[in-house]
Amino acid sequence: MKKTISILTILYLLNVNLSSAQNILGFNDKSTAKEKDLEAQFDSKLNPQNLRTWMKFMSSKPHYVGSPHDRDNAVYMRDLFRSWGYEARIDTSYALFPTPKLRELSLVSPTTFKASLVEPALKEDATSIQLKEHLPTYNCFSADGDVTAELVYVNYGRPDDYEVLEKLGISVKGKIVIARYGGSWRGLKPKLAAEKGAIGCLIYSDPKDDGYGQGDVYPKGPFRNETGVQRGSVLDIPVAPGDPLTPGYGDTKNAKRLDYREATTIMKIPVLPISYGDALPLLKALEGRIAPEAWRGLLPITYHIGPGAAKVHLKLAFDFKVEPLYNVIAVMKGSEFPDQWILRGNHHDAWVFGAADPLSGMVAVMEEARAIGELAKTGWKPKRTLVFCAWDGEEPGLLGSTEWVETNRDELSKKAVVYLNSDGNGRGFLYAGGSHTLEKFFNQVSRDVIDPQKGISVSERLRSNILVNGSPEGKKEALNRADLRIEALGSGSDFSPFLQHLGVSAMNVGFGGEDEGGEYHSIYDSFDHYTKFKDPDFAYGVALAKTMGRSVLRLANAEVLPFEFQSFSNTLQNYGDEVKKLLENTRSKTEENNRLIKEGRYEAASDPKEPYTVKVLDEVPYINFAPLENALTRLEKSANLYAQVVKNSEKLNATQLAKLNELLYTVERYLTKQEGLPNRPWYKHQIYAPGFFTGYGVKTIPSVRESIEQRKWKDAETGIETVATVLNNFTDQVEKAVALLK
Amino acid sequence: MKKTISILTILYLLNVNLSSAQNILGFNDKSTAKEKDLEAQFDSKLNPQNLRTWMKFMSSKPHYVGSPHDRDNAVYMRDLFRSWGYEARIDTSYALFPTPKLRELSLVSPTTFKASLVEPALKEDATSIQLKEHLPTYNCFSADGDVTAELVYVNYGRPDDYEVLEKLGISVKGKIVIARYGGSWRGLKPKLAAEKGAIGCLIYSDPKDDGYGQGDVYPKGPFRNETGVQRGSVLDIPVAPGDPLTPGYGDTKNAKRLDYREATTIMKIPVLPISYGDALPLLKALEGRIAPEAWRGLLPITYHIGPGAAKVHLKLAFDFKVEPLYNVIAVMKGSEFPDQWILRGNHHDAWVFGAADPLSGMVAVMEEARAIGELAKTGWKPKRTLVFCAWDGEEPGLLGSTEWVETNRDELSKKAVVYLNSDGNGRGFLYAGGSHTLEKFFNQVSRDVIDPQKGISVSERLRSNILVNGSPEGKKEALNRADLRIEALGSGSDFSPFLQHLGVSAMNVGFGGEDEGGEYHSIYDSFDHYTKFKDPDFAYGVALAKTMGRSVLRLANAEVLPFEFQSFSNTLQNYGDEVKKLLENTRSKTEENNRLIKEGRYEAASDPKEPYTVKVLDEVPYINFAPLENALTRLEKSANLYAQVVKNSEKLNATQLAKLNELLYTVERYLTKQEGLPNRPWYKHQIYAPGFFTGYGVKTIPSVRESIEQRKWKDAETGIETVATVLNNFTDQVEKAVALLK
Repeated sequence: MKKTISILTILYLLNVNLSSAQNILGFNDKSTAKEKDLEAQFDSKLNPQNLRTWMKFMSSKPHYVGSPHDRDNAVYMRDLFRSWGYEARIDTSYALFPTPKLRELSLVSPTTFKASLVEPALKEDATSIQLKEHLPTYNCFSADGDVTAELVYVNYGRPDDYEVLEKLGISVKGKIVIARYGGSWRGLKPKLAAEKGAIGCLIYSDPKDDGYGQGDVYPKGPFRNETGVQRGSVLDIPVAPGDPLTPGYGDTKNAKRLDYREATTIMKIPVLPISYGDALPLLKALEGRIAPEAWRGLLPITYHIGPGAAKVHLKLAFDFKVEPLYNVIAVMKGSEFPDQWILRGNHHDAWVFGAADPLSGMVAVMEEARAIGELAKTGWKPKRTLVFCAWDGEEPGLLGSTEWVETNRDELSKKAVVYLNSDGNGRGFLYAGGSHTLEKFFNQVSRDVIDPQKGISVSERLRSNILVNGSPEGKKEALNRADLRIEALGSGSDFSPFLQHLGVSAMNVGFGGEDEGGEYHSIYDSFDHYTKFKDPDFAYGVALAKTMGRSVLRLANAEVLPFEFQSFSNTLQNYGDEVKKLLENTRSKTEENNRLIKEGRYEAASDPKEPYTVKVLDEVPYINFAPLENALTRLEKSANLYAQVVKNSEKLNATQLAKLNELLYTVERYLTKQEGLPNRPWYKHQIYAPGFFTGYGVKTIPSVRESIEQRKWKDAETGIETVATVLNNFTDQVEKAVALLK
Repeated sequence: MKKTISILTILYLLNVNLSSAQNILGFNDKSTAKEKDLEAQFDSKLNPQNLRTWMKFMSSKPHYVGSPHDRDNAVYMRDLFRSWGYEARIDTSYALFPTPKLRELSLVSPTTFKASLVEPALKEDATSIQLKEHLPTYNCFSADGDVTAELVYVNYGRPDDYEVLEKLGISVKGKIVIARYGGSWRGLKPKLAAEKGAIGCLIYSDPKDDGYGQGDVYPKGPFRNETGVQRGSVLDIPVAPGDPLTPGYGDTKNAKRLDYREATTIMKIPVLPISYGDALPLLKALEGRIAPEAWRGLLPITYHIGPGAAKVHLKLAFDFKVEPLYNVIAVMKGSEFPDQWILRGNHHDAWVFGAADPLSGMVAVMEEARAIGELAKTGWKPKRTLVFCAWDGEEPGLLGSTEWVETNRDELSKKAVVYLNSDGNGRGFLYAGGSHTLEKFFNQVSRDVIDPQKGISVSERLRSNILVNGSPEGKKEALNRADLRIEALGSGSDFSPFLQHLGVSAMNVGFGGEDEGGEYHSIYDSFDHYTKFKDPDFAYGVALAKTMGRSVLRLANAEVLPFEFQSFSNTLQNYGDEVKKLLENTRSKTEENNRLIKEGRYEAASDPKEPYTVKVLDEVPYINFAPLENALTRLEKSANLYAQVVKNSEKLNATQLAKLNELLYTVERYLTKQEGLPNRPWYKHQIYAPGFFTGYGVKTIPSVRESIEQRKWKDAETGIETVATVLNNFTDQVEKAVALLK
């Protein structure tokens, strides 16, 4: 292997040389050299010890919304930012944040069992002893309730799980459902259950998903032990994140507030998360049909669906109170374009101690800011304004960032060039999602950051991982495509209001994959857990700082903002192909289903002891994709033209260059539509959105894709027209840029 | 659904009419009508109560080789056959049958635990109380041993599992391995372990595979409970089945016998099967690397591989004694062709009570024989001789059938037309494997047997199941191909010596899929279990009798034996395509592997905390498939010609017809080669064999397929030539038949 590695090293050296020979996107020969020098200085100032110190302090006590340490952390960060030369402030607003007053869960028949609902202290985990200070296990924005009913196991509680139940003739009406975590965003589990008539919902962490099925459990290993519980919000984020009392506008001190009983994004039924220790007696008591193979977890039982003998009592009461949110905002004014803002953020609030989520990302942001502050002390200044943000209230539903965006909507619409987000971070591989106009830019950045374990670029490490472990399609692309793809963004962190509500180009970046664990949203997401299992020496915290610090510096200093349209066009072509294929697959599956019913094949194949029913589906019409196809063709041509002429930017005068940059950073706005997506006007972006039925998971060109998935053929056609319109608006702007450059 | 069903019914009625309008293969218009009438009479005589009565008696006590009830059952059956008008006898021979004298297993470090090795009595299971009478849990043909060593978990213990271990740098040398049942035939687990240097082997039943992961456990449900153990043979059957003391010849009373220490097919290391109750403390104690995801079962632990702290002591001693085998042979002489034998068999010995395995099939054979006996009492006689066989010693390694075939080799070579086998049977779908020259014949049979639950033919029910639950390719074929495919035969039941040693065309048939359970080879394979969970009213036992009785009657009475060559040719074309594709895939995977190593991708992608090594593979050459392709083309042409001219058979005189039939039933012999397969001369058939490394699972054209799998490129080319030669020999016979008919 030695020989192989040395060949490899040579290859990478060549690679680095090649990449060094290229200009940085948006920079010329001279400014590239200067920028590279600046980045080298930046790198040299990064110190993992800082990340450790800050994480240790900030994770020392619970710091959820409204807790004393939440405010302490905000003040701590504000003061640090100030010490690094920033104009730092705390923007305070006020949001609904319900916390539990009463939680009771018991099995009342056929035997009795009272759930403990407690995560006990562990001697190996120093902070876990603070049992009184931390928030108990609960789902934030659950309804109050006192219900007793038969239990039904609904797998992940997704739409297709309910299709299975329907086939089996099992209704959840008047029942309490128990769903397992995973497979979809948690908030959709009680939402769908309520829509199907359930009167309560339990969500448990199956050991298959992040417990002993994945590896040794805490404290021996990093995975969820039998008492660990995943807290989390069940706000209806796919409809709108943010304070449910101030829908669509900022939750400033004197803002008009709804009564919480009027708020539409609060869950309608009581819902409680539980450990697998508490879930086992309930699931064991279930009778009725045996769960399909794909539904079975790793508890040592046969998974039954119910309903029947197993009956549970669930009683929950919450304090629906308004709490302050402390967003820390630290500004370094741009020397040339102070009204062009490069925003960089991470949230600081946690469910409990939050070492991994969110502090591992937060401390990287802080170190970026500190190092840039050091650079600024040497006389260098960013051309554009830097805005570092530490958000509060992300956990209950992106409250801090959403309300801040809604409050500062007009200014941000004018000034925001980009929003760069991170959240939890750990050892492993780079992952990046974002606006595809930034794909080429970000690929260049990631080729210039060295992986701390392997000494090759984080980009090449990721490519290697795809080549070794990827899907066949992924492998093929990784062999043949110069750039690695970035993911589209759904929801689940603070990029959402910027990108999807305002149309600000955004990125969300982190490292992970070799830091797996089951600490998520439990008291065991602690400093001890993090430094034992996730990124013990903070090497990947520094790698994140290098990646995002570089991104900030390049965007702040670029002559021409590094937005690019060929990757975007190529990506959108793929989305177009996907939705066409989705329609075709839906058609052939529908035809097959209806043929099998007509010929009596289901009936003939079925086991009389395991009966099920199948429904004839409406036929799938052909749909007019032409508007989309035409818009994509036009986009492709303009993107190619822009790529050819952008080199002429050196000939532009200052006014023309300013005009070009403004066109570039506002182009994402043209992908939004003021009316928003069907049934959820808050989401204005027509290309990227969280799935209405998947939650965090993205659905691209959602008005087309989701309409097809939901068999709304007319809506799909309307969606095609809408997407074509925004793409044409977008292309208009690209063409304006081309005209400027010609 | 009502409407749909009535359309369906009409469709099937049409179908039945169409099929009724056709002649039975090998019969003319007139004789078809007569045969159909005979079959209707046959059906009317079948009585499920008989099956119940016989199963109840025969499963009342343990009836393993050498047990008193094994002999009782043989006498019982012989006397019944005689009462039905057969010349029935017991052919006794004498085979090695080791039974345990001492079994001890304990964990000796880091904690201690003594395995119970007992399947306790259950009040719900009447026969389970006979704790003293039954054979304890063991693997027959294990070596004696007294070993203490560290434990290593090897998943299913297959070749690719050892590849994973090698990648991870884990050796089993000097260790005791623990493998789970499934994924390959049990005998290969200790065999491979021994080849890799292990000194002992445990095999346990993971609850994922036939325990609570599949459904409720016994006695609540049919699946394996925590005390259930799968007994079974570990004789080296892929090398040769039968008495290891008389390799290749019959184990008659005075046959020359090897000392058991010289026998080559006896396992070299001690091996013991255990329950998951006994396995849990051992697996829980393992440390070291975490097992890959695909290796993890359903015990409530994190699966580690070891080795390390977990050390076990295994002590086994056996009584290597010779016991009598009682094969019951019942003959009804043919009226026209007494020297053409239609053989129909099932084994009668069991590991314990054996209600499902083998009695559920055995009692169907008996009812077929009884009903045919009734027909014979009305004056009808079969044209060809019927030979009903109830084999002893199948469980330890096809001892009874193999030794009987070896003893009667010359006569069988001359006289055997076909061997029709069954084994366990239950509720569900038809499954059939066999010589593909019988595929069309058997499809016709299965279209004339009605499924007891659905009232449609068992063939249409199976087709419906494929259309609903099959693979995409399976669905496509089931839509477009008139005949359903039959499987190729590997090993695991008594067809093997007939087909693979002698080249007698064979079928193996049963029903199942709605009778799942975990009773296999445990004391809980009992009358109570069977009649509660498998086929409570013996309706599928009767369906099996209808299917195989029909097959016997048609083969016995056909004017022209219903062998056919187009299905065979089509199947062989597929095998040819498969091995070509296998070589191509091996080549592209090899190229990818070597490229990833050369470029350092594995190293770059790997987690430094989870290191692994990969090996450069030898390049895959191109191989000359032309001899096979030419042979297949020639076969196809001859098969098509035969299909055209077979209708001329009515014009043949008696001598010509006799010649034709002899050509037809001996044609399978030409697929054998006297030297046998590479490294296992007992297996003479060149098209069908059990996999050398999969055991029961079939490998078709094994000298080509296995050579490619084992990267023996020269051997693959030699294999192609051998297969081409036997196919050409086969085609020569078909051409002789064509010449006769022209």
